[in-house]
Amino acid sequence: MTYRAPVADMLFALENAGGLWAARDEGLYAELDSETIAAILEEAGAFASGELAPLNLAGDREGCRLEGGAVTTPAGWAGAYQRWAAAGWNGVLAGEAHGGQGLPTAVWALTSELWSQGSMAFGLCPLLTQGAIEALERHASDELKAAYLDKLVAGTWTATMNLTEPQAGSDLALLRARADRAGDGSYRIFGSKIFITYGEHDMAENIVHLVLARLPDAPEGTRGISLFLVPKFLPNADGTPGERNDVVCAGLEEKLGIHGSPTCTMAYGEGGGAVGFLVGEEHRGLACMFTMMNNARLAVGLQGVAVAERATQHALAYAHERRQGKAADEPGPAPIVAHPDVRRMLLTMKALTAASRGICYRAAVELDRGRFLENTGEAKAAQERASLLIPIAKAFGTDVGCEVASLGVQVFGGMGFVEETGAAQFLRDARIAPIYEGTNGIQAIDLVTRKLPLSGGETVRGVIADLRGVASRAAEANAPGFGAAAHRLDDALDALEDATAWLSAPDRSSAHALAGATPYLRLFGLAAGGAALVEEALAARRSGDARAEARAALARFFAENLAVAARGLATSVMEGADALSGADVEAALAL
Amino acid sequence: MTYRAPVADMLFALENAGGLWAARDEGLYAELDSETIAAILEEAGAFASGELAPLNLAGDREGCRLEGGAVTTPAGWAGAYQRWAAAGWNGVLAGEAHGGQGLPTAVWALTSELWSQGSMAFGLCPLLTQGAIEALERHASDELKAAYLDKLVAGTWTATMNLTEPQAGSDLALLRARADRAGDGSYRIFGSKIFITYGEHDMAENIVHLVLARLPDAPEGTRGISLFLVPKFLPNADGTPGERNDVVCAGLEEKLGIHGSPTCTMAYGEGGGAVGFLVGEEHRGLACMFTMMNNARLAVGLQGVAVAERATQHALAYAHERRQGKAADEPGPAPIVAHPDVRRMLLTMKALTAASRGICYRAAVELDRGRFLENTGEAKAAQERASLLIPIAKAFGTDVGCEVASLGVQVFGGMGFVEETGAAQFLRDARIAPIYEGTNGIQAIDLVTRKLPLSGGETVRGVIADLRGVASRAAEANAPGFGAAAHRLDDALDALEDATAWLSAPDRSSAHALAGATPYLRLFGLAAGGAALVEEALAARRSGDARAEARAALARFFAENLAVAARGLATSVMEGADALSGADVEAALAL
Repeated sequence: MTYRAPVADMLFALENAGGLWAARDEGLYAELDSETIAAILEEAGAFASGELAPLNLAGDREGCRLEGGAVTTPAGWAGAYQRWAAAGWNGVLAGEAHGGQGLPTAVWALTSELWSQGSMAFGLCPLLTQGAIEALERHASDELKAAYLDKLVAGTWTATMNLTEPQAGSDLALLRARADRAGDGSYRIFGSKIFITYGEHDMAENIVHLVLARLPDAPEGTRGISLFLVPKFLPNADGTPGERNDVVCAGLEEKLGIHGSPTCTMAYGEGGGAVGFLVGEEHRGLACMFTMMNNARLAVGLQGVAVAERATQHALAYAHERRQGKAADEPGPAPIVAHPDVRRMLLTMKALTAASRGICYRAAVELDRGRFLENTGEAKAAQERASLLIPIAKAFGTDVGCEVASLGVQVFGGMGFVEETGAAQFLRDARIAPIYEGTNGIQAIDLVTRKLPLSGGETVRGVIADLRGVASRAAEANAPGFGAAAHRLDDALDALEDATAWLSAPDRSSAHALAGATPYLRLFGLAAGGAALVEEALAARRSGDARAEARAALARFFAENLAVAARGLATSVMEGADALSGADVEAALAL
Repeated sequence: MTYRAPVADMLFALENAGGLWAARDEGLYAELDSETIAAILEEAGAFASGELAPLNLAGDREGCRLEGGAVTTPAGWAGAYQRWAAAGWNGVLAGEAHGGQGLPTAVWALTSELWSQGSMAFGLCPLLTQGAIEALERHASDELKAAYLDKLVAGTWTATMNLTEPQAGSDLALLRARADRAGDGSYRIFGSKIFITYGEHDMAENIVHLVLARLPDAPEGTRGISLFLVPKFLPNADGTPGERNDVVCAGLEEKLGIHGSPTCTMAYGEGGGAVGFLVGEEHRGLACMFTMMNNARLAVGLQGVAVAERATQHALAYAHERRQGKAADEPGPAPIVAHPDVRRMLLTMKALTAASRGICYRAAVELDRGRFLENTGEAKAAQERASLLIPIAKAFGTDVGCEVASLGVQVFGGMGFVEETGAAQFLRDARIAPIYEGTNGIQAIDLVTRKLPLSGGETVRGVIADLRGVASRAAEANAPGFGAAAHRLDDALDALEDATAWLSAPDRSSAHALAGATPYLRLFGLAAGGAALVEEALAARRSGDARAEARAALARFFAENLAVAARGLATSVMEGADALSGADVEAALAL
């Protein structure tokens, strides 16, 4: 299985669809020229393709084992992780105070995508650690920061997020894990958590669990949840791992995919109480936990993009090599890439991958604007644009991951259904991403109920206006290679504007808005993704890039063959909601 | 996991969307009243739910084992098969001359769907045997019929289809398996075949392989392929299995799904030549093999419908039981079915399942018209309608199987990704159906290149006119419960007519037609599926059925939320083809 890290293409996407050039004009990324970013990405790409990709298939076959509370990860996993951490990759985003490199979110996002390209199951571990670093940087006491952050940033210790319990998944108000005050400022944690990614493993010397639990006097619901840091080993005074804490891995899930990533049931306090330390204020744990939500959701969106990238490369290589059937102008059996129907699948894979990548990168650059712009008004506006784009990046990116992986199986035909080719693994791995870190349904609801109203609708109107600008520039370019791309993109944006206005109407009922959330998010993804590809094609044209016509062809394919779904989605949003409720609908489900 | 065989609903679909009532008016099915059909289906449903469904999950976990050339199927598999055969289920479709019941194709199709509902991996075995029975009934010598058909019809022996070789999948012209004339009228077969479903197993006393191979003097390509019957055990004079033939199972595939079904590599002639007997004429094997293509493709489409049915029941039960989050007017955590976004997923599952079922059943009834109508002109017209509908039934049905199973995983959330719930198994099992029995791409090409031209386009125009009639009757009914269903269905039919006319234009290039084949098939599926649901709702209304409003609600949901994709698909067909070819597109794939 050949995989090359598409670093140049990723950088091009970041500069153009992502808007890195534009952000530079605003003074961002001043200390980081494109050569430096390219050098970082080249090195990350070399690690992803050289160290991680070769482990991916074997890690899936071998999976993880639990024996006597200890989890063994697949052969090679621990060594690769240690080399990865030793190279400093865990500190890309973290601040310099604790040994991080303090690089922009955009650079971190692209390295994160590269780890997932190499192995999604492997890349999950640093993703969780990064979330904990952010939560601790923002909310932990100086004492906790001093004890934990250096180790986490270095990656010698890893971290986990403990939210889910059997009865509390998307609905954290229902969680029951308990925390008692110990009297010495620490706490004792009791309870069981499920679906804890890398909750136990053999890759690092300590594991730091961030755990949501309730104090005895906590109010009900989500306003009564506190966040605790619970280390596997309590650190000694010299910072080395000391006494074993009362937290154990009680089980491993047998999953559809990401077999290399141990998904643990964690039992806290079965031996008298796990020692925990409060992060942030009591009862305010959910807010702390959601500090890192934007980055985490962006990174999960990029997992979808990353698996889509791998599946696309994999299917393309096979389609050039596998010969079946006659194609026009070819003697003898033709490589299946020559068949129009196979080519449609491959172009769909390529175009969806690039489109969702463009959306993710744009969100990353907006996050950086929000972090770094000095003008607070501009920073807030950028932060809001990021907040609007994040649920689209997460849900569209992960849906694309599944769709592209499934098309990859189809391109392989019967060989795609056989595990040895690896095509099926991409589908199995990708399938979790629309579920975790907030299901894609929840992303859609977030987009419609919390993001459309930002700044009275000014934020979404601004984003759509930007997309309109892209379509206009394409129309002005009036290049034959674009075909009807500008026109089709305009159609998609008309549909998006109509649906946005409909959802934003002051008298719109909550039930109607919720009913249309998922098709609306898809519509937004198609419009924004279509614009991202057109923007890349325009940029290539402007700079006289040798691949300008190829980029135009990809943008055209997307606009003419995929973005054309936009109007149907808008109709479903605006006219389909009544079909989702009422007694007859209940009866329809019972038919 | 609760599963009930939805027999009443299936019969209702057969009578209405399938057109059983209409066919009765033409004199068909005269000896078979609905009570009799219902009784057959009830009994089949009891077997599917009582005997097969309980084996499905365990069969997946256990899988098949190959040791010393012998394949062991999962525990319980062999016993269930033998009881199934003893009950006479293998003889539903076969003629009475060899012990079959000679029932209509429609009845066989529904029983076949029920076996796949119980366990798709199990139901595959009889599906292959049935194909062999049809080929032998039509093309075998009286001697071969006498020696093999009674056993196959009884199900004491099973059968396989041996087409694929490593270099010859969709392209059978490339196959290399060799047949030599033995001089005594028999042949010796040499070569290796892959992906042979139930090529070896422990469920029946003999296995009859139908094998495509080339004679030494065969012309190249598909016109040089002959069909041979190669039994695992050569029958003794008394009909019992005798000498072991020179065919062995050389390997089992490790697959994404249908683990209960052994997928074998079969080696012929490694010990001097497998004894084979010609079926039909030399060099005419492909035609013989494709005798049963319509039934086999219909049955595979129904595998998709069947898995969709199982996944839908499974997700609905969970969505009523799992409580998360607040919903309008509900105190405390609400069952997730109350959330509009979850309800959209469940309605999509329910509606796609019912729509694809309606298309399959319509195809089955047209096949019966083709078999039984005395007026040869009418019979031919019906046969052509069936031929037109079969690729849609196969590809739309199996795509729906995957989509619905994937939605089922999503409804289960994190629990859907964990194998113990079984939601993921439905997705893994369903994923093969768009690949085998002619990939869905090949179905789409068949539809566009061979079926649209039937009777100079009269056939497709007639089918679309029928669908128009349904939309008109819905408009006339003018019932509030239909919402905009009639209008949306008309929109979809406009799109279908436009795309059909475009594809059928005399100057349409083959490359353009092929490029649009897949979106065109989807468009046809949405239009025909939407009409099927409306037809069922109208029938329920006419007969004063208590569930008439529920059926209207389902038809409305489909029309307003799913069929609205039709115009975008038509645009892709008619205006998207240029985006699929040319040097820039090649370069786009290489980006």
